[in-house]
Amino acid sequence: MAVRGRVPPSRCAVGIVVGMTVRHRRVMQVAAGGAVTWRSDDVSTEEPLEIRVGDVSLSVTMRTPGDDFDLVAGFLITEGIVHGAGEIAAMRMCPDAAAATGELNIVEVTLSEASSRDITPRAFYMTSSCGMCGKASIEAVRTKSLYDVAGDPLRVVPALLLGLPALQRAAQRQFSRTGGLHAAALFDSAGMLLCLREDVGRHNAFDKVIGWAATRGLLPLRSHIILASGRASFELTQKALMAGIPLLAAVSAPSSLAVELAAESGMTLIGFLRGEQMNVYAGHERIIRA
Amino acid sequence: MAVRGRVPPSRCAVGIVVGMTVRHRRVMQVAAGGAVTWRSDDVSTEEPLEIRVGDVSLSVTMRTPGDDFDLVAGFLITEGIVHGAGEIAAMRMCPDAAAATGELNIVEVTLSEASSRDITPRAFYMTSSCGMCGKASIEAVRTKSLYDVAGDPLRVVPALLLGLPALQRAAQRQFSRTGGLHAAALFDSAGMLLCLREDVGRHNAFDKVIGWAATRGLLPLRSHIILASGRASFELTQKALMAGIPLLAAVSAPSSLAVELAAESGMTLIGFLRGEQMNVYAGHERIIRA
Repeated sequence: MAVRGRVPPSRCAVGIVVGMTVRHRRVMQVAAGGAVTWRSDDVSTEEPLEIRVGDVSLSVTMRTPGDDFDLVAGFLITEGIVHGAGEIAAMRMCPDAAAATGELNIVEVTLSEASSRDITPRAFYMTSSCGMCGKASIEAVRTKSLYDVAGDPLRVVPALLLGLPALQRAAQRQFSRTGGLHAAALFDSAGMLLCLREDVGRHNAFDKVIGWAATRGLLPLRSHIILASGRASFELTQKALMAGIPLLAAVSAPSSLAVELAAESGMTLIGFLRGEQMNVYAGHERIIRA
Repeated sequence: MAVRGRVPPSRCAVGIVVGMTVRHRRVMQVAAGGAVTWRSDDVSTEEPLEIRVGDVSLSVTMRTPGDDFDLVAGFLITEGIVHGAGEIAAMRMCPDAAAATGELNIVEVTLSEASSRDITPRAFYMTSSCGMCGKASIEAVRTKSLYDVAGDPLRVVPALLLGLPALQRAAQRQFSRTGGLHAAALFDSAGMLLCLREDVGRHNAFDKVIGWAATRGLLPLRSHIILASGRASFELTQKALMAGIPLLAAVSAPSSLAVELAAESGMTLIGFLRGEQMNVYAGHERIIRA
């Protein structure tokens, strides 16, 4: 994949590029009795990002600036708009908007000749004869997904999984400053942290991690583990599946549709991964028991 | 507003309708050493909801079923697609999808004759000469908003605000069961809880609360307070502003664009409202100091 334009492609690094991700604000801290202290506070940056493919404005997402090309690659892949980074010929920041405001908030994508995708996002949910329902959403994702995670040989001991949140938190330098960012972390089967991304939107954090892997030719992410700092939704489960990841773990609760998509896809879904225990909602066979 | 169809309009009630909002799942609980316990777990329901206005499919959102007509009314108002519930002539659950699956996941909206809105959602962010940036997003919301919160006379003592999270949690019956729902709570200026809604999506919880108020003729919500159980994003700040709410409080962190939108609109934005103190990011004059 060729990447051109003003912004260099993100470097492989655990942690994120500091800079535009945080803004300083003067804040009035108030105690119960009304006593006031003024101080400086770090606030997570949120800015819109428009994704254009050819002449089509595909999506506007509110995100934390940084790793934008990874975000776009991950979005296109996990939404099933392209099958891999090889279908992306080029990405560039739109110069018009940049010239007017100094902000770099539009990414224009040129698809490769080989690609002739239907670039309608979320068409996903409307393709089944059963109408608009969770089952149709699951079928649509499974139809779009290139990778079968059901046969993935990954097996892990509980102690390895229980150690992952601490590794994620240690790498979340931004979180400790603002308290306002979701994180996604990619681990290999030995529990080594490969990539961590933070964003005001949890779906963006997932897209940045998966886009990072995709643009380095690492998809499918066989026998890898992805960890969400919050809850596991249908959307996050979809994104993991579209990247071929066989194990999704979340520090907090999963939704019903996340559990159903994982179960029907042969993915392992873990929730409430905290302290000394966890809940396994699907794909129990990958957990090595006592 | 006339509401017809199979689903009755939601009743005014603090708390939410239990039923479809939770599903039971068999879960394997695993300890660090690998010891396993099987038990039943309550998981928050997540299902897609398609919103159609006339012939246009406007949006598909993943939401927790329940209060769907309020959700749709709130969405249409806070996105600026209609100016109030009076522009909604009717809402109904789409019978075709329901017949095939038993799920009620499509709401069809008929606008009143008086309404001739541009029903393109999110056109918002693309209307400014400065291109795609936070400033343009703020201008677009301020242009769309009917209500000026800057002059709202609300004044509150810190102790009142610090008591709100406990009132919210006490009403979050669902949260205590699943741990997987965001909550939005509407309070009057005396700190009385008027409406609480929970959802897998925090924007949906806001739309349900605001839709509940709108369909009862309560907009603008002058001198009211809305509390988010998590973080305050641009989107939530926008929704509060579109409903005329002068004070948005969040238990966790705000984003940069939430702070900027609140400051430029004269809205009070409070973050980290927990324990014995809070941070005031904008609209400090509404907080009565010692």
